[in-house]
Amino acid sequence: METLSTPTINHISAVVKLHKLSDSLGFIEKIAEEIAQGLNLNIVKKVSNKFEPIGRTLVYILSESHLAIHTWPEFNLMHIDLVSCSNTTLTDFDRVLAGILREFQVVEYKSKSHNI
Amino acid sequence: METLSTPTINHISAVVKLHKLSDSLGFIEKIAEEIAQGLNLNIVKKVSNKFEPIGRTLVYILSESHLAIHTWPEFNLMHIDLVSCSNTTLTDFDRVLAGILREFQVVEYKSKSHNI
Repeated sequence: METLSTPTINHISAVVKLHKLSDSLGFIEKIAEEIAQGLNLNIVKKVSNKFEPIGRTLVYILSESHLAIHTWPEFNLMHIDLVSCSNTTLTDFDRVLAGILREFQVVEYKSKSHNI
Repeated sequence: METLSTPTINHISAVVKLHKLSDSLGFIEKIAEEIAQGLNLNIVKKVSNKFEPIGRTLVYILSESHLAIHTWPEFNLMHIDLVSCSNTTLTDFDRVLAGILREFQVVEYKSKSHNI
């Protein structure tokens, strides 16, 4: 991105595997709201979808870009995708997620900051 | 991701700088719909937001995950983020984008496939 005149774009994604991952909307909303709160991101609009037979997607448009969470309860797995024009670092993200996931039995957690 | 039992998650993002990037909803919807059509992705739900003074976000929940586009018309720039559980490759994505962008004066195009 060095050659482009651009805004700040911080792109982070994570895969979280729990011992037991809920298929409820409440679960995915709680995770997303706590991420937004923990990283001082402002939710502008929300959209969600329930897939058949299981699995959900929740997307928040943020004033800083977007946060999307997809769940695959059949794998006890969720994918978190955050694009932010705020100065959110991977360290901040991991710290917030560690706090959120404290109440769950985490089987695996992987996160990464992406550059183009 | 080798150690996780997971679904396929293909994650691709791109930054596109045009000579002149429109701030209209029609522009961003056209780009998103042509990406979905070109990659055989199925749009389930849409949400968009207009920022002040300029800039838009459009997110499509797909049956294969999500497609989000953010524009920064002040930089003539857009960021495209695609998370897909279909077998979308970076080559497919670049080919579709090349077709879509043919009618615009592209200053810079960067894309990348992301792994966790």
